Formats: sequence, structure tokens, C-alpha cells
Amino acid sequence: MPEMFADRLVAAIESKKAPICVGIDPIFEMFPDAIAGKTRNANDATAVLDAIYKFTTKVLQVVAPHVPCVKFQSAYFEKYLWEGVEAYFSLIHEAQQLGLLVIGDVKRGDIGSTAEAYAAGHLLDGPIDERDDAAMPDAITVNPMLGLDTLKPFVDAARATDKGLFVLVRTSNPGSVETQDVKLADGRTWSEALADRLRPVAESLVGSSGFSSVGAVVGATQPQTMTSLRDRLPQSIFLLPGYGAQGATAEMTRAAFRDGKGALVSASRSILYAHTDKKYAGDAWEKAVERATLDMKADLASVIR
Amino acid sequence: MPEMFADRLVAAIESKKAPICVGIDPIFEMFPDAIAGKTRNANDATAVLDAIYKFTTKVLQVVAPHVPCVKFQSAYFEKYLWEGVEAYFSLIHEAQQLGLLVIGDVKRGDIGSTAEAYAAGHLLDGPIDERDDAAMPDAITVNPMLGLDTLKPFVDAARATDKGLFVLVRTSNPGSVETQDVKLADGRTWSEALADRLRPVAESLVGSSGFSSVGAVVGATQPQTMTSLRDRLPQSIFLLPGYGAQGATAEMTRAAFRDGKGALVSASRSILYAHTDKKYAGDAWEKAVERATLDMKADLASVIR
Repeated sequence: MPEMFADRLVAAIESKKAPICVGIDPIFEMFPDAIAGKTRNANDATAVLDAIYKFTTKVLQVVAPHVPCVKFQSAYFEKYLWEGVEAYFSLIHEAQQLGLLVIGDVKRGDIGSTAEAYAAGHLLDGPIDERDDAAMPDAITVNPMLGLDTLKPFVDAARATDKGLFVLVRTSNPGSVETQDVKLADGRTWSEALADRLRPVAESLVGSSGFSSVGAVVGATQPQTMTSLRDRLPQSIFLLPGYGAQGATAEMTRAAFRDGKGALVSASRSILYAHTDKKYAGDAWEKAVERATLDMKADLASVIR
Repeated sequence: MPEMFADRLVAAIESKKAPICVGIDPIFEMFPDAIAGKTRNANDATAVLDAIYKFTTKVLQVVAPHVPCVKFQSAYFEKYLWEGVEAYFSLIHEAQQLGLLVIGDVKRGDIGSTAEAYAAGHLLDGPIDERDDAAMPDAITVNPMLGLDTLKPFVDAARATDKGLFVLVRTSNPGSVETQDVKLADGRTWSEALADRLRPVAESLVGSSGFSSVGAVVGATQPQTMTSLRDRLPQSIFLLPGYGAQGATAEMTRAAFRDGKGALVSASRSILYAHTDKKYAGDAWEKAVERATLDMKADLASVIR
């Protein structure tokens, strides 16, 4: 690969003029009838997996011209055991063939040599590189609870392969307040202290764009902490979940951007399942996906820059 | 299943007279020659997977008469993509057939509906129940960084299926100090505050043994925090990694026990790869595994009770 992940991502955002990441959360129960079939039999694992391939492939084709990046939520694939995992790597390959950058949302984290094994299974190309029907993502999300030492194998893997990481710093769910927003004795929140420790790690992997391949996940639902975290991690690209279905607005993402750059707003259900939104009633489901993508693009453009 | 996980685990520990969990960390590079083959070709994925099946099956057979429980480290299976994941569920089935309780060390954690998908893919029997060559573990490890609300889908799944959870509270690696041992403004450490929040969750799933199916992972390498965490989580079974290869001794685990009960000491490499230990030089590798298991049992018995 010719360039560092951060540079490829910054360039792709510029090229598509959309700081948007579409979250691939394939949930059978929410699929349109045209995909799930009239019987909607969630217990037929083979039929469900077929539907996941069909739905995801179509979504990727619809959004690829408009956005730089997609994020695959591993949990919805792992739900279908090893066959689901095979679908995950196969569909990542399809996404990359369509020119999309892919983030694997796996949130892995473990100690030393175990983290090395996770990096090998989720980031390094290794044996998968020989296959023409499966591929590794360009970046993954990682969980830093176990300590910054446990990120090293992931950072080493990212450095060796020009890939990227998004470290969970402040998540978008209400309960994150209890564990991440608690005040330490020195006055910082737990997330702020984490961000301060993460900064030198991010600085060790900065590309020509001025951004680092070590990014941060910061919930768009938390605008009150965004400015502080942006100041502490000036070179990290922020991946912002929470837009749309979780209630974050374009305005709430503003503080994550540096001169209109360095952030990627993620939306999953509000795009994938736009056919259930009254706003797009009457559209074919694929058309609803496209319109929701374009509406999100316009919404962000009204606020960013 | 007839009983709650906590009760089954407490009974199995009593029956085997060993508060021991053998960690299944299959690392090809450390396999004995008899398993890895003379060429030790780590790039031949099929041969490596065959070796993992062969090695793990033998280890399970050797330890099953002596210990109540094994812990499968998912990372070493995920390293081999979907085929590795298939091996994980297949070998868990083998372990259960040998009468072992199985903990899946997956350390998953995510928000709301995503956590539900993880619970479905890693704890609920669902479709896997119809297969005779694969099975779900009896319990899994989960990562609580995202907040206690994110544990609910896992707790619900454990309650519905009489399974168990081990929530990461204080891990065994040196870097855990930075994220888990930091002092909050109220004087507690981050792990202590987490334990206090976890207590009512654990109390909601207590069995007839007096222990909860919501346990805690507490590194045996941290005896200084063990007493405080034991006081805060009196009904949780503690899963203690760090014995052996990571340097924790039997004495260091003492404070985790309540009248000789309620803790499970985990060891992986010091048992699986005992053939590399001078102490067992000359033994066949299977014999070394058995002797290391019995030595650990005797070592713990000298301290516990």
C-alpha cells in the first residue's frame, strides 16, 4: 500500500467531499421485505446469511459513489458464528473493490501476546492476502481499558501495514458517563487522562496530511467533551458515532473538526434502514439508502467549513 | 441446564478439589515438535489448524480428570479467521463432552443492541444447539469500559440460559495501573468504583451456593487491590489470571478466596507449554502438562484453606 492510512482517509474524504462513514450493521429483523423474504424466518441461518450478503452488497454499491468509508460492525456477523465471520471478511473485500476504505468495528483489546494474535487476525494481511474473496479492513477499533501497553501490538501492526486504529476514548451511549466521564483526583476525566496518554502514541504515526493513523472514537452525542478531547489529541482523526438514530446532530459534531478536517461522522441505521423513515416513504429501499446518505452529506456540509 | 452457572462452577471446583482454570492459548510456535511437525511451517494455515485441533484435544483429555474448568482464549483462534472460529466452537464442544466447564475469553463489549448481537453470538445456544460438533461456552469474559448499561444484554442472556459472565475489573498486565488503578476524586480507584457499580448486578444473579453467575476478572498479580475488590464484590466468583508465566504465586491469590471458595486461578502457558520448563525435562509433553497441572493443584492447596 502506497500511503499511510490517515493520508488515504483524509484524501478520500476530500475527494468525496463527505466526512461520512456508513456503518454496516446488518440486522435481519430490520431488512426490507425485498431482502428478508415474506416469511422473514430469522431461524434459518443459511437464508439469513444469504440476505446479509445481498443486503450489504447492495448498500455498498449504493453508497460507494458518495462516501469515502464504511464501518463493519463485527457483532452482527459474529452473531452467525464462523459463517458470519466469513461473510464479514468477504464483504469487506467487496467494499474495498468498490473503492471504499473499511473500518472493522471489532473493539478488541487484551494483554501483550494476546493482543498480537488479535492484530494478526484483524489487521495484518497475512494469509488472507492470497485469497481473492476475502480481505482485511484498512483500520479497526480497539478498546484501551487494559492499558496503553496493550495497544502496542496493534500500533506495530498498523505501522507495518500502513493501516489505522480508532481507539475508544469516549463512547456515545448514556452509560459511558459512569466509566469514562468520572473525574480523577487531578481534575481530568478518565477519558481526558486516556487521551493525554494516547497523544504520544498518535504522534508516532503522523502522515503527510498532518493527521495520525491512530485515531479516536468520540461519541457525537458528547459535544461537551469534544473540545477538550480535540485539544488533547490534535492529530488524531475522530470517528464520531451517534449521528442519526442515537440523536446527535451535525451541529454537535462541529468541535471535532480542525479547519473542516480530521473527523468522520458515522451513521448506521438512519441510512441502512431509511426505508422505515416516513421521510422516504414511497421510495424503493435502495433509493431511501441513497437519499439518506445525500441528506446526511448536505446536513454536515451546512455546518462543517 | 439444571443449575445456575455459579452453582455448577462451585460444585465442580469442590468435586475436583482444584480452584483451577486451564487457559487454552494454542500458540503454534510453542507447540511441541510431536504436534507442530519437524518443519514447523506457521504459514500453512491448514496444517496449523490441524495442529491446534490435535494439541487442544490432547490437552483437554489430560487436564479433564484434574480441573473443573478451561478458558478458551478467542484471540488465538480468531488469528486463523473463520476457520479458527469454527475450531473454537468445535473444541469447546469437545471440552464440554469431557465434563469441563468452559469460559470463552472473548472480552467483548459494545453498546446496547450491538452487545445483544455479541451475546447471541457468544453465549446464547440458539442455532448452534442443533449441531453435534460445536457448542457455546458456559460463560464468557466481558469488557465494561463502555458502561454498566452495556452489560445488560449479556446479563439478560446469562440469566435466560443459566450461563455466566466474568467482567474485567482489574487486569493482570502492568499497564492496567494507568487505566484501572487511577484514583478518582472520591478516593476510590477506577476499578473500585466499577466494582461498586457491578455489585447490584452480581447480586441479581446469585445461586444457592451464595455465589453469583456474574463474576469478576481480577489479576492475581495485584494482591494489593484484591482485598478491597473482594469486599466490594462479596458474591462474585473471581477469575484470577496471572499465575505462573505472569509471575503470580499461590500466596498472592489468597485474598480472593472466601473460606476457601469463590475464586478460580487461571494458568495457561505454564501448563500448556510445561515441556519447555526444565523442571519437566525428559517428560513427554502430555506428561509435562499433567505434572504441571498437579503441581499447581498442590501449590494452591498449600495456601487455600
